[in-house]
Amino acid sequence: EFVARVSGIPTMAKLPFQESTDGLDAAFVGVPIDTGTSNRPGARFGPRQMRVESAMLRAYNSGTRAAPYESLMVADIGDVNVNLYDLKDTCKRITEAYRKIVATGCIPLTMGGDHTISYPILQAVAEKYGPVGLVHVDAHADTSDVVLGEKIGHGTPFRRCVEDGLLDCKRVVQIGLRGSGYSADAYEWNRAQGFRVVQAEDCWFKSLAPLMAEVRTQLGNGPVYLSFDIDALDPGFAPGTGTPEIAGLTPIQGLEIIRGCHGLNLVGCDVVEVSPPYDTTGNTALTGANLLFEMLCVLPKVKHY
Amino acid sequence: EFVARVSGIPTMAKLPFQESTDGLDAAFVGVPIDTGTSNRPGARFGPRQMRVESAMLRAYNSGTRAAPYESLMVADIGDVNVNLYDLKDTCKRITEAYRKIVATGCIPLTMGGDHTISYPILQAVAEKYGPVGLVHVDAHADTSDVVLGEKIGHGTPFRRCVEDGLLDCKRVVQIGLRGSGYSADAYEWNRAQGFRVVQAEDCWFKSLAPLMAEVRTQLGNGPVYLSFDIDALDPGFAPGTGTPEIAGLTPIQGLEIIRGCHGLNLVGCDVVEVSPPYDTTGNTALTGANLLFEMLCVLPKVKHY
Amino acid sequence: EFVARVSGIPTMAKLPFQESTDGLDAAFVGVPIDTGTSNRPGARFGPRQMRVESAMLRAYNSGTRAAPYESLMVADIGDVNVNLYDLKDTCKRITEAYRKIVATGCIPLTMGGDHTISYPILQAVAEKYGPVGLVHVDAHADTSDVVLGEKIGHGTPFRRCVEDGLLDCKRVVQIGLRGSGYSADAYEWNRAQGFRVVQAEDCWFKSLAPLMAEVRTQLGNGPVYLSFDIDALDPGFAPGTGTPEIAGLTPIQGLEIIRGCHGLNLVGCDVVEVSPPYDTTGNTALTGANLLFEMLCVLPKVKHY
Amino acid sequence: EFVARVSGIPTMAKLPFQESTDGLDAAFVGVPIDTGTSNRPGARFGPRQMRVESAMLRAYNSGTRAAPYESLMVADIGDVNVNLYDLKDTCKRITEAYRKIVATGCIPLTMGGDHTISYPILQAVAEKYGPVGLVHVDAHADTSDVVLGEKIGHGTPFRRCVEDGLLDCKRVVQIGLRGSGYSADAYEWNRAQGFRVVQAEDCWFKSLAPLMAEVRTQLGNGPVYLSFDIDALDPGFAPGTGTPEIAGLTPIQGLEIIRGCHGLNLVGCDVVEVSPPYDTTGNTALTGANLLFEMLCVLPKVKHY
Amino acid sequence: EFVARVSGIPTMAKLPFQESTDGLDAAFVGVPIDTGTSNRPGARFGPRQMRVESAMLRAYNSGTRAAPYESLMVADIGDVNVNLYDLKDTCKRITEAYRKIVATGCIPLTMGGDHTISYPILQAVAEKYGPVGLVHVDAHADTSDVVLGEKIGHGTPFRRCVEDGLLDCKRVVQIGLRGSGYSADAYEWNRAQGFRVVQAEDCWFKSLAPLMAEVRTQLGNGPVYLSFDIDALDPGFAPGTGTPEIAGLTPIQGLEIIRGCHGLNLVGCDVVEVSPPYDTTGNTALTGANLLFEMLCVLPKVKHY
Amino acid sequence: EFVARVSGIPTMAKLPFQESTDGLDAAFVGVPIDTGTSNRPGARFGPRQMRVESAMLRAYNSGTRAAPYESLMVADIGDVNVNLYDLKDTCKRITEAYRKIVATGCIPLTMGGDHTISYPILQAVAEKYGPVGLVHVDAHADTSDVVLGEKIGHGTPFRRCVEDGLLDCKRVVQIGLRGSGYSADAYEWNRAQGFRVVQAEDCWFKSLAPLMAEVRTQLGNGPVYLSFDIDALDPGFAPGTGTPEIAGLTPIQGLEIIRGCHGLNLVGCDVVEVSPPYDTTGNTALTGANLLFEMLCVLPKVKHY
Ligand SMILES: [Mn+2]
Ligand SMILES: [Mn+2]
Ligand SMILES: [Mn+2]
Ligand SMILES: [Mn+2]
Ligand SMILES: [Mn+2]
Ligand SMILES: [Mn+2]
Ligand SMILES: [Mn+2]
Ligand SMILES: [Mn+2]
Ligand SMILES: [Mn+2]
Ligand SMILES: [Mn+2]
Ligand SMILES: [Mn+2]
Ligand SMILES: [Mn+2]
Repeated sequence: EFVARVSGIPTMAKLPFQESTDGLDAAFVGVPIDTGTSNRPGARFGPRQMRVESAMLRAYNSGTRAAPYESLMVADIGDVNVNLYDLKDTCKRITEAYRKIVATGCIPLTMGGDHTISYPILQAVAEKYGPVGLVHVDAHADTSDVVLGEKIGHGTPFRRCVEDGLLDCKRVVQIGLRGSGYSADAYEWNRAQGFRVVQAEDCWFKSLAPLMAEVRTQLGNGPVYLSFDIDALDPGFAPGTGTPEIAGLTPIQGLEIIRGCHGLNLVGCDVVEVSPPYDTTGNTALTGANLLFEMLCVLPKVKHY
Repeated sequence: EFVARVSGIPTMAKLPFQESTDGLDAAFVGVPIDTGTSNRPGARFGPRQMRVESAMLRAYNSGTRAAPYESLMVADIGDVNVNLYDLKDTCKRITEAYRKIVATGCIPLTMGGDHTISYPILQAVAEKYGPVGLVHVDAHADTSDVVLGEKIGHGTPFRRCVEDGLLDCKRVVQIGLRGSGYSADAYEWNRAQGFRVVQAEDCWFKSLAPLMAEVRTQLGNGPVYLSFDIDALDPGFAPGTGTPEIAGLTPIQGLEIIRGCHGLNLVGCDVVEVSPPYDTTGNTALTGANLLFEMLCVLPKVKHY
Repeated sequence: EFVARVSGIPTMAKLPFQESTDGLDAAFVGVPIDTGTSNRPGARFGPRQMRVESAMLRAYNSGTRAAPYESLMVADIGDVNVNLYDLKDTCKRITEAYRKIVATGCIPLTMGGDHTISYPILQAVAEKYGPVGLVHVDAHADTSDVVLGEKIGHGTPFRRCVEDGLLDCKRVVQIGLRGSGYSADAYEWNRAQGFRVVQAEDCWFKSLAPLMAEVRTQLGNGPVYLSFDIDALDPGFAPGTGTPEIAGLTPIQGLEIIRGCHGLNLVGCDVVEVSPPYDTTGNTALTGANLLFEMLCVLPKVKHY
Repeated sequence: EFVARVSGIPTMAKLPFQESTDGLDAAFVGVPIDTGTSNRPGARFGPRQMRVESAMLRAYNSGTRAAPYESLMVADIGDVNVNLYDLKDTCKRITEAYRKIVATGCIPLTMGGDHTISYPILQAVAEKYGPVGLVHVDAHADTSDVVLGEKIGHGTPFRRCVEDGLLDCKRVVQIGLRGSGYSADAYEWNRAQGFRVVQAEDCWFKSLAPLMAEVRTQLGNGPVYLSFDIDALDPGFAPGTGTPEIAGLTPIQGLEIIRGCHGLNLVGCDVVEVSPPYDTTGNTALTGANLLFEMLCVLPKVKHY
Repeated sequence: EFVARVSGIPTMAKLPFQESTDGLDAAFVGVPIDTGTSNRPGARFGPRQMRVESAMLRAYNSGTRAAPYESLMVADIGDVNVNLYDLKDTCKRITEAYRKIVATGCIPLTMGGDHTISYPILQAVAEKYGPVGLVHVDAHADTSDVVLGEKIGHGTPFRRCVEDGLLDCKRVVQIGLRGSGYSADAYEWNRAQGFRVVQAEDCWFKSLAPLMAEVRTQLGNGPVYLSFDIDALDPGFAPGTGTPEIAGLTPIQGLEIIRGCHGLNLVGCDVVEVSPPYDTTGNTALTGANLLFEMLCVLPKVKHY
Repeated sequence: EFVARVSGIPTMAKLPFQESTDGLDAAFVGVPIDTGTSNRPGARFGPRQMRVESAMLRAYNSGTRAAPYESLMVADIGDVNVNLYDLKDTCKRITEAYRKIVATGCIPLTMGGDHTISYPILQAVAEKYGPVGLVHVDAHADTSDVVLGEKIGHGTPFRRCVEDGLLDCKRVVQIGLRGSGYSADAYEWNRAQGFRVVQAEDCWFKSLAPLMAEVRTQLGNGPVYLSFDIDALDPGFAPGTGTPEIAGLTPIQGLEIIRGCHGLNLVGCDVVEVSPPYDTTGNTALTGANLLFEMLCVLPKVKHY
C-alpha cells in the first residue's frame, strides 16, 4: 500500500516520531534557535521547514547506492526545548539533551538553528568520544574570540571548542571560507591551531573529490564531527540564510564533501543556518534536508548496493 | 516548565499526535487533496501549512472565554491517505476513514483539501447521525450538477449530498456567495431545495451576529455540520485559495459565524481550500488554523469561563 | 463542451481576440506604460497580468444579475503600441488609437498603465462626445500643474483635461482622496473647478450606495467617463500599485461605486495603476480584472435578469 | 527645484540625518532589535524598512490639515546601537540613549524593534516627566510576569513599567486585545491595575472616534506616551509582524486612534513589531511609516490649516 | 515600426496566434495539466507563464546564429482543452489533438504541463513516424510501472511508451537522473530496455558537448523526440517545479543538450513540469521559454548564418 | 566598541554619508533611474537596495587581502537627483554631477540605475581623462543605434560613446554577451569598431583569469572604465534585473573579471540594472553590493596584505 508523499505530520523524511533514542542508531533532532545570529534571523524555523521540505526523500540514494534504513534504525526525535531569551541557558539545555542522545551510541543528525549550537553539541559529543576531528563547511571561520562584545554566538563556536579541548586540532578542516572580515589578522588564528583551511577560491571550478581523499587521510580512523553551515553554499542555491556571501560552493560540491566523508568514523553531523523567512525559493530548506539525508547515507555501517 | 512555541514537530496547535481516536472527544484530521479543483491547485498542502501556522494557538480563547482542553480530549490524528490520481477512490478512502472517526462519537475537525472532501465526509457523518443541518460558508454555492464534464469535484459536493439524502435541506444555510457564474439559472437550484442563501452583498458592512441568531433558530437541536471554504473570506485577508472572489467576508465576520454556532449540535467541521502556494502572506493558513480553533471552542460541552 | 478555465491564450475574460473594433459594442484594450509614474514602476505589465487573472470571470454577474454578453458584442482588442522612451509620443499614439475605437461608438474598457493615459484617452473621447462627466476614483487628485518639472505624468492628467476643455466640470466627482501632499493649497484647485471631492475619510465605515445616488443625480444623462485608479483601494486589498496610501476604500466600496454608475451614460472606463511586480498576493490584478468586468456590466443596454 | 522621491539615502520621510537632537522638537529614532520576540523574528529590520517605505511621506497631511514641519524642527537621528546578544544590556543602552533625547524636551518617535523596547524607553521618559499616561494599541496585553522563564521580553514590558512606577495606571488604555492565551486569569492583572482594556471585539465595525473622545477625557493634561504594536492591526493589512492575530483593527481605526490623541500632551511615541522578512506585500512597513508620520502630526504645537 | 516588447496579448515569443496548423512548419502548443503530479502541483499554468516570460525572445539566436523564422512558418496554436478531473480522458484528448498537428508534418513544440503528457503525445507522433528515438532530459527516469497505485502519471510515461512500442529503445538516452528512489532495483528496468542512462553525477563540472556528439551518433537519422523535464536543471536555476532534486544540470548544460540535437531528425519537442506557483524568481518559466526557442532553432531546415 | 550590523541609516557599506567629494579618493554614488529600460523596470531602486544589502561588507577582503580603507578615503555621497520624466534631461544632470565628482580625481563607484547612465557618466569621465578603455560586462552589447525609435536608452549607451569619441576602441572588451537579438547583422558593429567581444559561450565552464590576463595586456596603462551590467550574471544568481538572459556568467566569474582588473588604471566603475522588485531572493542587490566593494578593492593604490 502506497502512502502519498503529501500526506502526514511533517517529520524528517517521513520517519516515525519518537521521543527517546531507544533502539536508534541515528536520530534526526532539531535545535530551533537564531539568537546567536548577528545579521538576519530566522534559523529558529530551520528544523520545521527542513522537515516540511523532506517529504520527497525516499529510501534509496541513487547517486551512491546507499540504503540507510536497511541497516540502521532511524527516527525523528523532535526538538530540543530551547530558551529564546537566554542563549547561555539554551547552550546548557543542548548539552544536556545531547548527552542523552549520544549516551547509547546513537548518532545525532542535527537540524539547526544557528551555528552557535555546534559548541554545546560538541561538548556532549567530546564527553562521550574524546576530542574529535571536524569537517567544517562554511563561508566563515566561526573562530572569533568575541563578536559584538559576547563570547557565545554564531561567530565563535569553534574558538570555544578549541579552548575547551573538544577538537583534535590536527584533524580539523574548514572548507568554503570567503567574504569580507574585520581585519587581516582575524584569519590567522585557525591556521595557527593547525586547522587545514580551504578557501572558497580554492574550490572554484573544481570537483572536491580529490580534496576529500586528502581529508580522509588527514582525519584517519578517529571520531569525526561534520558541521555544515548552509552559507557555505552560494546564495544562488541557498538564499535562505543569515549571513550570505557570494561566490560560494555549489550543491554538487556540498554533496562531494559529504559523500567524501564516507569511510570516516562519523559520530555526529549538523546542517545549520537555514533561515526560512529568507528562503523565498524553498531551495535552502530542500537542500538542507537533502544534505542531512546524504549525511545519514555516509554513516558507518550503512548498507550500499 | 515552558515550551518554546518554535519547538517541536508541527502538529495542529501543538497537540499530541496519535493515530487512532481512542479516548478523543474531538480530533483534528487532514485530507490533503486538490484534485477536485478547477482553477489554481495547492490545497493538498493545506493541512501541513495550517499545522505549521498553528503554533501560536494557546489554550484559552480570550474573545469567547472558552477553554476547550479543560473539558474535551483532543489530538491531531494525522491525515487520510489519499489517492492523488483517482478522486473517486480518494472519496471512498475518506468515507472509510471518517466512519472510524465518528464511530465513537469523536467530532472531526477537518483540515482540507479542496471542497470535494465535504461530500465523502458527510456520507460518513450522515450514516452516523442521519441527515444533518449544514452551515456552509463559501463564495460559491458548490451545488453544480456537473463541472467540466464530471460529477465529483469541488463545485458539486452539496448537490451530491442532497441527492444522497445526507442533508436536512430545511436546515441548510449558505453564507457569502458572490462572483460570476455560467448562467442565471445556476443560482436557483439551491434555493429550490429549501436552503437559506445569504449573498455576500447581504453581509457587507454588517455584524453577522443577528444573522446567526436566526440561523440558530432555523437549525434547532438536530445535528449540524459546519463547512467553511476559506474563499468565503475576502482575498485581501485570505489570498491563498484556488478560486478567489473579491468583496467577500472579513475574518471578523468569519469569527462571528463560527461563534454564532455556539449552542448548535455540531457533529463535524471543516476548513477547506487553503492553498499554501498562493498564500504569499501566510495569512490564509494562519486564518484557517484560527478558524479551526474557534470551531473547537464552540463544540458542545466546551467549558467557558 | 466545456473549456477548462486554465486553458488558452490569456485574453481578457477568455474573450476572443480581434485586432479591430468591427462589430463591437465594447472592447477591452490595454495601454502598457508606467513612464508617467513618480515612485514605483511596473504598471506597464498591468494589462498582461489583468488578462492572466481574468480567467475565472464568467458570463453572469451573480451580485447584479447582469449578463453582459447576452446584449453586447465584446472582445479583447489587444494593446496600444506605446513608446516607452517618449511619454508625449505615447500620448499621441493613445489618442490616435482611441479615435478609431470610439469612432463607431464602441466603448473602450481600458486596462492601464499608469494614470497618465486617461488624458490622451479623454482627448479622443471628448472629440467624439464633447466634454464629459467624470467619476474619478483615486487616492490622489491627479490635478497637479507640474510634477517633477513636467506637465505630463500620472499626477497631472485631470488638470490637463480641464485646460483642454475635455471635462464638464460640474459633472466631475472624485472619490477616495487621502494621504500626504506637498502643501495645503494643492488641495484647492479641483474644488475651485467645481469638482465634487469626497475624501477617503468621508467614506470610512460606510456604504457608498447613498453617495452614488447623489452622483447619478449630479451627472445626469450626459456622457460620463469612469476612471478607477486601483490605489483608491486600501493597499491591504491592492498592494500592487505605485503610490499606495493606507486607509483607503475597500473592494466592496469599489463595487458599490461601479454598480452605482448603472444608469449613467458611460462612454468609456479604465482601471489604472495596477503594478504586477508589487502585487505579491495577486489580488491587485484579480481585483482590477473584476472591476473591469463590473464596468462592463453597467454599460448602457446590458441585459439584467 | 524638485527632488525625485526615489533619490537619496533612505532617512525617515526624507528628513535630514543628524546624530544629536540639538535644536530638534521631535526626532525619529530606530531601535533595531527582535531578541525579545517569542515567535517570528525580524523586527530588527523594522527601522530600516520603515525608512525605505517612507519616501512618499510629504509635508502636508490632507486628512487632518496638519503641516508638522511648519512648526517643529524634526530629523532622523539614526538608531540606538543595540547588543543583539544581551537583551538586558540592550535595555540599558536604550535607556541611556533616550535620556539624552528627552533631556532637552525633544519628543522621540521610535521605530522598533520588538515591544521589549518600550520598557527602557519609558524608564527614560518617566525619569524626565514622572509617571505617564499610556495609549497602548496591541493585539496583546504585554503584561505577563514571566514569558518562557524570563522577566524581560516582548510579552512583559508594561508589567515591568507598572512595577517600576513608570505609568499612571488610571491613565492607561489598551486597545485591540484579542486571540488566545495561556489561561483565563492572565487577563485579569491589567484590569486590576486600573487600566482601561478595550478588546478588539469591542472595536469591530465601529469608528473609534467616540472611544478616543473618552480616552482624551480619561488621560487629561498630563504627559502621555503612545505605543503602537503593529500587530494591533489585522494581519490582512499588516502581515509583517511576529505574533499575528486575526480579526484585528483596520488601518482606518489605527489612524482614528492616533488622530484621536490630538490634544493630549504626548511626550513620546513608538511603532513596534514591524518584521520586514514577513512583510511580503510591503504594506506593514508602509503602514508603520504612515503611523509614525500621523503621530508627528498630533504632537503638541503642530500647525494645522 | 517597432513594437514594444511589453505590448500585446501574450502568445509564445510574440508570434501570431492561429487555431489550426495550416501552413505551419512548427507550432507552439500548450497542454495545461498537473493532475499527473505526485508532489507539488502548478504545472497546469506552465503554458500560460512561459508565454508571459517569452516576450524578450527575438528572431535571431546570437549563440548559434540560427534565424528560425527565416526558413520556417511558426505560430502559437493555443492549448489542448484538457479534462482536469480525468487524466485518462485528458490523455485521449491530447492524442487526438496531436494527431491533427502532426498530420501535415508540422512539428509540435509543447509547453507542459506535467510529464504525463509525453505519453499521449508520443502515441500520436509514433502513429505518424513509427517508433522514435528519444532524448529525455530529467532528474527522474519516469519509467515506473505503477505510482501511487496508478499506471498513468508523471512517473510512468516512458514505461507506457515502451510497452506500446512507441520508442526505438536502442535510440533512447536519458540525461540528468539523480536523487532518491523507492528501491535499488527501480533503476534497472530502463537500462534493461537498452536505454543509455547518464546520471547527473556523470555530468557534473563538464561540458556535455562530447556526450551529445555520441548521442547524435547513437540516434542517427531516424525520427527523434526531445522531452525536457525542467527538473533536470538544478533548482537553483529552476525552482518552479513539482519534484525538485538538488545538484542537477545547469542551464548551460541544458542549452548544450538542445544545441547538441542539431542535425537530428527532430519530429517533436516538449518542455514540461514548469510550475509557476513555485517559480518565485520567474527564472523557471523564463528558462522554459528559452529552451523552447532553442528547440525551434535546431529543427531540421532552420537557417543558420 | 562594536556597532551592530543591523543598526544605522543604510549607507553603502555603512560608510559615512557626505554631500561633496571633498577629501575623497573614491565615492559611492547612486543614479536611480529605469526610464531607459525596454522591458521590466525597477532599477530606479537599485541604489537604495544595494545600500540596504551592503550592511555585511566589512573592511578586509579575505579573498584578495585588500584593505581599501587603509589607503583610500571613501564615502557614500548619495544620489544624483534625476528627472524621471525626461531621460535626456537626466543625462545632462548626470554629466554635470559627475564632472564635479571627477574634477578632483575622486573615483566614482556608481550604483545604477539602468545602463543608459554609463553614457553621461563617460561624458564626464572622458572630459577629464580623454578617451578611456572599457571593460564592459553584460549579456547585451548595448551598441544599438536606435531602440524603439529612440537614440538614448539602455540598449544604446556604448554606440553613443563611440560616436562622441569617449572610448579608445582598441581598448574595449565586452564579456558575457548572449541571447536573442533582432537580426544577425546587429552583432557586427561593435566588432567593426575594434572591440574585443567575448560571448558567454566562450566563458562557459572556465576560469576567466586567463582572459583577464589578456585584457590587462590589451588595456595597458591608460585610463579604464569598468561597467558591469548585472544581467551579465546568470539569472539563477541575479534574478532581479530587467532583461534577464539564461546561461550567463557565474558570480565567481564576475569576481574574476573584477579582480582581474587589478593593475589597470581604473578611473570609474559602475554596477547597473539591479531591479529590486524582481529580486525576490535578495541575491541580486547583495551581489551588486559585493561587486562594488570588489571594484573598490582593485582601485589603484589600494593596500593589500
Ligand atoms: Mn557558521
Ligand atoms: Mn557561515
Ligand atoms: Mn467551496
Ligand atoms: Mn469556494
Ligand atoms: Mn491616479
Ligand atoms: Mn492614485
Ligand atoms: Mn506588543
Ligand atoms: Mn502584540
Ligand atoms: Mn519527468
Ligand atoms: Mn522529473
Ligand atoms: Mn547593459
Ligand atoms: Mn544587459
